[in-house]
Amino acid sequence: MKIAFLGLGTMGLPMAANLVNAGYAVRGWNRSPAPAAKLATLGAQIAATPDEAADDADVLISMLADDAATRAAVLDAGALAVLKPGAIHVNMATVSVALAEELAARHRVQGVGYVAAPVLGRVNVAEAGQLNILAAGEARALAAVQPLFDVLGQKTWHMGERPEQANAAKLTVNFMIASAIGTMGEAVALAQGHGVDKAGFLQLVTSTVFAAPVYKGYGQAIADERFEPAGFKLSLGLKDVRLALEAAEQVHVPLPLASALRDTHIESLAHGEGHLDWAALSRSSARRAGQA
Amino acid sequence: MKIAFLGLGTMGLPMAANLVNAGYAVRGWNRSPAPAAKLATLGAQIAATPDEAADDADVLISMLADDAATRAAVLDAGALAVLKPGAIHVNMATVSVALAEELAARHRVQGVGYVAAPVLGRVNVAEAGQLNILAAGEARALAAVQPLFDVLGQKTWHMGERPEQANAAKLTVNFMIASAIGTMGEAVALAQGHGVDKAGFLQLVTSTVFAAPVYKGYGQAIADERFEPAGFKLSLGLKDVRLALEAAEQVHVPLPLASALRDTHIESLAHGEGHLDWAALSRSSARRAGQA
Amino acid sequence: MKIAFLGLGTMGLPMAANLVNAGYAVRGWNRSPAPAAKLATLGAQIAATPDEAADDADVLISMLADDAATRAAVLDAGALAVLKPGAIHVNMATVSVALAEELAARHRVQGVGYVAAPVLGRVNVAEAGQLNILAAGEARALAAVQPLFDVLGQKTWHMGERPEQANAAKLTVNFMIASAIGTMGEAVALAQGHGVDKAGFLQLVTSTVFAAPVYKGYGQAIADERFEPAGFKLSLGLKDVRLALEAAEQVHVPLPLASALRDTHIESLAHGEGHLDWAALSRSSARRAGQA
Amino acid sequence: MKIAFLGLGTMGLPMAANLVNAGYAVRGWNRSPAPAAKLATLGAQIAATPDEAADDADVLISMLADDAATRAAVLDAGALAVLKPGAIHVNMATVSVALAEELAARHRVQGVGYVAAPVLGRVNVAEAGQLNILAAGEARALAAVQPLFDVLGQKTWHMGERPEQANAAKLTVNFMIASAIGTMGEAVALAQGHGVDKAGFLQLVTSTVFAAPVYKGYGQAIADERFEPAGFKLSLGLKDVRLALEAAEQVHVPLPLASALRDTHIESLAHGEGHLDWAALSRSSARRAGQA
Repeated sequence: MKIAFLGLGTMGLPMAANLVNAGYAVRGWNRSPAPAAKLATLGAQIAATPDEAADDADVLISMLADDAATRAAVLDAGALAVLKPGAIHVNMATVSVALAEELAARHRVQGVGYVAAPVLGRVNVAEAGQLNILAAGEARALAAVQPLFDVLGQKTWHMGERPEQANAAKLTVNFMIASAIGTMGEAVALAQGHGVDKAGFLQLVTSTVFAAPVYKGYGQAIADERFEPAGFKLSLGLKDVRLALEAAEQVHVPLPLASALRDTHIESLAHGEGHLDWAALSRSSARRAGQA
Repeated sequence: MKIAFLGLGTMGLPMAANLVNAGYAVRGWNRSPAPAAKLATLGAQIAATPDEAADDADVLISMLADDAATRAAVLDAGALAVLKPGAIHVNMATVSVALAEELAARHRVQGVGYVAAPVLGRVNVAEAGQLNILAAGEARALAAVQPLFDVLGQKTWHMGERPEQANAAKLTVNFMIASAIGTMGEAVALAQGHGVDKAGFLQLVTSTVFAAPVYKGYGQAIADERFEPAGFKLSLGLKDVRLALEAAEQVHVPLPLASALRDTHIESLAHGEGHLDWAALSRSSARRAGQA
Repeated sequence: MKIAFLGLGTMGLPMAANLVNAGYAVRGWNRSPAPAAKLATLGAQIAATPDEAADDADVLISMLADDAATRAAVLDAGALAVLKPGAIHVNMATVSVALAEELAARHRVQGVGYVAAPVLGRVNVAEAGQLNILAAGEARALAAVQPLFDVLGQKTWHMGERPEQANAAKLTVNFMIASAIGTMGEAVALAQGHGVDKAGFLQLVTSTVFAAPVYKGYGQAIADERFEPAGFKLSLGLKDVRLALEAAEQVHVPLPLASALRDTHIESLAHGEGHLDWAALSRSSARRAGQA
Repeated sequence: MKIAFLGLGTMGLPMAANLVNAGYAVRGWNRSPAPAAKLATLGAQIAATPDEAADDADVLISMLADDAATRAAVLDAGALAVLKPGAIHVNMATVSVALAEELAARHRVQGVGYVAAPVLGRVNVAEAGQLNILAAGEARALAAVQPLFDVLGQKTWHMGERPEQANAAKLTVNFMIASAIGTMGEAVALAQGHGVDKAGFLQLVTSTVFAAPVYKGYGQAIADERFEPAGFKLSLGLKDVRLALEAAEQVHVPLPLASALRDTHIESLAHGEGHLDWAALSRSSARRAGQA
């Protein structure tokens, strides 16, 4: 099975590396050359362009930054165009539902399978091959790429037969994370308004009823007011909340909490905080209360 | 140390029982007589009125339903009035910040200590003596009642020297729980709007990034659409969100997420769902999307 | 017909004066003596206490600052207690629905009529006897005091048979005014974000689709950034939005726009702007956008 | 001066007719032929395609339904491509700020002027030549087309030198209208919750503090529950609120009221009410309160 891998960023590189290490023949491409060079040291082939990478591949995996980067590599640069009938494209990036639908249609026309498989987990989880993979697409295509998922992740969660369902699910998860962060931001503003120690309060909640990874991680950053370097940029959080709202509007689902969160993100950007870690969303809650 | 215990409801009774079993002399009172009779079988004394219970007590513990019930027993029925100087009142109920401030002032005038110590944990946790206790008050008073907290809970979290700080913290936690439930409600509406299976999606998130007790518990109820019997009534959730908003307004802290959640609770009440479990909040999100 | 008039503030004084000038025997009371002295120069009697004013009155009119002032004069200071059976109390202040209900019940017990009649219009309108009066109460009581309304206002609008209905209506109007101001605040922030001149934009909208008094007045203040002296204080606007939300919660009506407006008011207070004119609400919208 | 006019819908047809009647040489185009036939009876030329209409025109006026229709006619169908250097395109439709920016750039490249001039006013106002025109663009281009604006409208309001500023202003106005409607919806739900007559309440407010065209018109529709035929469809209202939110996000302006309104519109669509008049937005407020 020949694998093409587009996008060797912080997530893509360790994922591709795991596939190489598992014995797969991988031909990688990245817009900037440095990460590709690293992958080459493990024994992967390197392509100069997306279509060169995709040429003759059985499976094309893409893990690109956003809709625009995906569109540029897969459509404009011709990676899809060169895929042979029966090949499968596995898009593991967090893209919009609308793009997923468009891509699914285009692949269908060309006789190429299309699987959406966005992931949960940060870089260290990707390195360990312990991602949680949200996958959707036709059953046969899903079955065909499951061995690859077994290399990349600890578990594959099937979200449906239409690829965009996995993207809808991923965006929903990210909205939930935004809500957890935004809620901690408001909670801390309220607690501090009454003179309750921020760190002590967060220690309490993240040790008890909210003892979950997302609360612990972002809660610690809020307690420490440590927003750089960004693990996940606030501006990317806004993008995902926006995509969740768009996905919801498409199927007529009102999301008042997501709407309020979108406003808070925009307020953060208005104050030059888009480059900070997502946890910095809490600053807007503090600012509104005159605490910052 | 003689202990008076006002309020032997689903939480108060096991808490009082644990104190009796730990060897403390407890005189209990409850508005309706049945729970008091149960406590008597363990060896506790029973009082016919709040002031009879409080008479000559070293520590008065109250665990009453809300502000009104607390006011009725402690102020109107004279429990505070009969407390001797140097006694300590430990109010473990979830009451408003405003009432906590008023009670603190009244106790001070009378030379009686006042400690606020609301708890985290449901009935089974109370029975096991494993509550998390959020305590605030003067250091000496807190130290004096710590042995009782050691019987009732697994850990005591100090929230400050002013009693109302513990109530502010407790209300903040309950707002966070409301937000978690409300967020799951919107998330499920979005996922379902795209045909993603509700139960599968909730299984995913509560097994991974949201693997916390509050998400697992309420998530299961949402997945199963099982809202009766109510573990914690939606109408009580509204009361706590309202108290959190009042506590926030008092110190000029805007809480847009809490405001949106309050609206959702009210919508649930408008549809006759106030008696259902808090998880039923998700129904309003579904209804708005035309899914219910 | 002997009239007692409680509350001779900026609104109450010209209203009472109009009644004196129309030939009614008026006995006035005010917490601070200066306004009462002014009324006396027109020929009114002055009382030292609310109950002295109300003694032997056929109609008691109250126009006090808020719930607390009303409660203090009418209940605590005994104005209601001295009213004779068959007398009518006309409460023209903007008070809560809850207080209106409580007062209606207490008056009923005492055999005294109770009419709620809050007004629309500022001081100059009160002086001109051109107020719009929102009245509710029993038909007979309304008919009995209509001649007084004819002196005070240009038109009486009947809102129902239960007095609190007039208060609900008045609070609803004030919520609508808050929404108009808050909407202009957001609109101006958006227009300015694109470099559109604030004053020019407001001139456009208040000359065309929004050519209404409330838009013109507050729009001018926003265009000029002239928030002092306050025609109506922002902090009082918050009070009325809060009372509208409470009135709505009582009958299970969610008001997401009112909730968002409440948050904006609180944010203004957090930045020390509660004493400014209601139009200063626009500052919070500008601040969120990093424009202020 | 030869004028090409693209889009002869309910608004475009009377506008084009007024230009013909004022003596201008107009060549019209419409996607469906019937309206063009009507225009022809007045003496206008009719073109079969957008580029045929635009060929050799001095001024191209477009009044198309939305971004997509504008893009299709002006870009895809080649109307812009055939314009001669020095010609001016006046886009009077309500389109997105993003499209305005893109079109301005494309016209600049081609040496063609681009003026954005969306309008306020319904069909009867267009027929009477009494529109309010919000215009933005380079001063010279604005001056050149002012004689046309004098035919079409009662007043031209300059919003800036960048065309998109007029679109931002128009979308801001439409957000304000949405807010007025949404506010009336919540107000009526609150008033009705207390048994206050809906029609009476709306009569009161639209005769006094909200005596403005937009309140009177939509208020009457709400009072009568008359939502068909739609003067302006609710689904188009959602589009404009969305475009306002996008325009705001672009310049980092949070709009919580607009966000809440967007949710209410989506809820209306979820209940199959998108084809109704914008005033039907009030139904969602009633539904949330269990009144519908």
